[in-house]
Amino acid sequence: MVLQTSFAEIRGNDLYIDNVKASDLAKKYGTPLYVMSEGHIRHQMNELKEKFMDKYDKALPLFASKSFSCLAIYKLAQEYGIGIDCVSAGEISIALKAGFDPKKIYFHGNNKLPSEIEYAISHGINHFVIDNFNEIDLVEKIAGELNEKVYATLRVVPGIKAGGHNFIQTGHKDTKFGFSSHFGIYLKAIEQIVNSENIVFEGLHAHIGSQVFDLYAYISAMQKFMGFVDEIYDKFGIVVSKVNAGGGYGIAYNKKDEPLDFETITSEIMKVINGHYDERGWDRPAVLIEPGRYVVGNAGITLYTVGTIKEIPDVRTYVSIDGGMSDNIRTALYDAEYDGIVANKAGETKTKTVTIAGKCCESGDIIAKDLPVTANIEAGDIFAVFSTGAYNYTMSSNYNQLPKPAVVFTYEGKSKTVVRRQTFEDLIAYDVEENY
Amino acid sequence: MVLQTSFAEIRGNDLYIDNVKASDLAKKYGTPLYVMSEGHIRHQMNELKEKFMDKYDKALPLFASKSFSCLAIYKLAQEYGIGIDCVSAGEISIALKAGFDPKKIYFHGNNKLPSEIEYAISHGINHFVIDNFNEIDLVEKIAGELNEKVYATLRVVPGIKAGGHNFIQTGHKDTKFGFSSHFGIYLKAIEQIVNSENIVFEGLHAHIGSQVFDLYAYISAMQKFMGFVDEIYDKFGIVVSKVNAGGGYGIAYNKKDEPLDFETITSEIMKVINGHYDERGWDRPAVLIEPGRYVVGNAGITLYTVGTIKEIPDVRTYVSIDGGMSDNIRTALYDAEYDGIVANKAGETKTKTVTIAGKCCESGDIIAKDLPVTANIEAGDIFAVFSTGAYNYTMSSNYNQLPKPAVVFTYEGKSKTVVRRQTFEDLIAYDVEENY
Repeated sequence: MVLQTSFAEIRGNDLYIDNVKASDLAKKYGTPLYVMSEGHIRHQMNELKEKFMDKYDKALPLFASKSFSCLAIYKLAQEYGIGIDCVSAGEISIALKAGFDPKKIYFHGNNKLPSEIEYAISHGINHFVIDNFNEIDLVEKIAGELNEKVYATLRVVPGIKAGGHNFIQTGHKDTKFGFSSHFGIYLKAIEQIVNSENIVFEGLHAHIGSQVFDLYAYISAMQKFMGFVDEIYDKFGIVVSKVNAGGGYGIAYNKKDEPLDFETITSEIMKVINGHYDERGWDRPAVLIEPGRYVVGNAGITLYTVGTIKEIPDVRTYVSIDGGMSDNIRTALYDAEYDGIVANKAGETKTKTVTIAGKCCESGDIIAKDLPVTANIEAGDIFAVFSTGAYNYTMSSNYNQLPKPAVVFTYEGKSKTVVRRQTFEDLIAYDVEENY
Repeated sequence: MVLQTSFAEIRGNDLYIDNVKASDLAKKYGTPLYVMSEGHIRHQMNELKEKFMDKYDKALPLFASKSFSCLAIYKLAQEYGIGIDCVSAGEISIALKAGFDPKKIYFHGNNKLPSEIEYAISHGINHFVIDNFNEIDLVEKIAGELNEKVYATLRVVPGIKAGGHNFIQTGHKDTKFGFSSHFGIYLKAIEQIVNSENIVFEGLHAHIGSQVFDLYAYISAMQKFMGFVDEIYDKFGIVVSKVNAGGGYGIAYNKKDEPLDFETITSEIMKVINGHYDERGWDRPAVLIEPGRYVVGNAGITLYTVGTIKEIPDVRTYVSIDGGMSDNIRTALYDAEYDGIVANKAGETKTKTVTIAGKCCESGDIIAKDLPVTANIEAGDIFAVFSTGAYNYTMSSNYNQLPKPAVVFTYEGKSKTVVRRQTFEDLIAYDVEENY
């Protein structure tokens, strides 16, 4: 097992997160509980700042709102001066509520609604990652009505396939995202923007996938993009002034995963971009990256209480916990693999293999298959699942009418609630009694 | 295309649900919108009542809370006198809030928490579908403390595999649910209950899967169960007085699906059970069924507004709608297949094949692949997806911080809100600001 964050450690027989004993957190806040190491988050944001933003001119890393979105995370992002990407007006509204600088928000999405475009522009968001022709028309019209300018980077499909799972492979040809680079389609889009009144063409956006471990995929996407940059110069005489190199940097969920080094990815990307621009004698462009789950993925540890343990002779042992696919749907949805440990017996040797099952009324509600655990695992133990910081809270549901867990941050030996646990009353907060 | 409910129809160029024009609903309530045909729901509940509950002695059909849970549905179930199954204290709390009779609630689940068991018993729920040994201990203890009796049916694994998808196949050996019938395991459980002070043994529960289209699977499960009934009589001298035959009756999501006739399933089940009891000269037992999504599945139609349409030459055409995996995760999760139609162009011939994509920032966010639609589909059209009544609202999330859609009931030409749409404010309703 790998702890997957240096902010967690095993001392004696106990798991500690930011120097707080995990079982104390379970006692204090109840389970299931999303614990997020603020220590880890700050460390990662600082990496983005020091190893990318401060290191290069006009460089901006964007935190992926969809990986983990709540008031507290935007306040941290704001503190480090990094940017964010948002994929809906909902995400934007939360970021703004947290006091986030609208000029550092990049608005993404394959189907931005007219109402969302209006919301964004009227709230000062003027960086759009433009995805399609319909959006160009809508933004041109709405920006005009609001008398604002929108700065556009175009999402262009690099035609490169990378990433761990079909669902999160977005760079190949058959995708709902972006403009095709074939048949001159993206050039038509640029032409339309160049001829528009309210949209300013700035550059290109590339996204090749999520949970990517292949350095060459990043390099070759950027090499392809430098070809696009040349094409644009040849056709329009415009030097692309902003390159959003995307991201989807893979993190370790278990010991099989071998993440790339952050600085290696970014320096290779910068080498391709700056090398090309220097060669052409152009001013270097602004470069953005979107490291995705890199900031929060390994920061999260979900704590559960162990309940039923069912040994099916010759088949398998199911250990049921008090949460499940309602708080972590990634195993069911992507066959994601999670690692975990009995937090209050963390020092013991793991001699038993079990399957960690959720409490939802559904066979697919499994959190981790065939996981080694201590043989004396029993009801009442606290089970910690690692690397649940991204796409757990944001994808959570009330399936089976399970209240959503609280989110607790830990930092330097202390803890605080950032999202409170739902109650049964909350489950019907939106039910209304109307008559026909 | 099949409309999948007789309460929807196409008149002229428009889709109507319970005699209400779908595009009028979209205009009135906005999109995405969960429309539930109360006409359909009442029809199905009435079938349960007339063709099962009233037809047989001691027969009780149970509505599956997890398929669709809100105050309004429990009120309808109460009106028809049918029972419900609940899989959590959260579901129970909502049913009770709606005024549902606690004596007609059956409490299910592979990992009922001590707090849930206490909640259930202290609120008058005394029918438990007991799943495991740990639960027997907990119920015995908690019922004792509360000075109440609990009536137990035991979930026994029939060892029969049926149903459309791995995730929803629950009757085979490798399952987190129930007691194995091998190695005499379930008999040990009965022995423990018989010797308990606060749990009354009533009978057995079988569940072979969900979305089942195979009549023989039901018959052979019941035949197997009659073997268990004999075993129990031989060992304990007890005649099983309650048989919960489970359910998971398949419904049609598209024209490939061929659902069994409700009365055929139940009469075949009753034939096996009553035949066996008559032969043995025993009083016939109470029989319960759990028809699952049968009540609400086809009642639901989700209305979306069409946005971006992206034609990728030689690949496919993506039609993006204003919802997605946040309101319907079943396509991404189970490869579920949905049918749909442009509600405001419902009379037109379908000459174009498209993929209906959601607006979530994720390639897997697809609602329906390769669906025939009218060639003049365009932004602003209302797209209706059929048979979204089960496991859509209850599995919905705020992924991408998309507010959850409203749920609207339609009935005899009228409509009413039963769950209101979420606002951006609701997205941070549980965020708190604490200091360390």
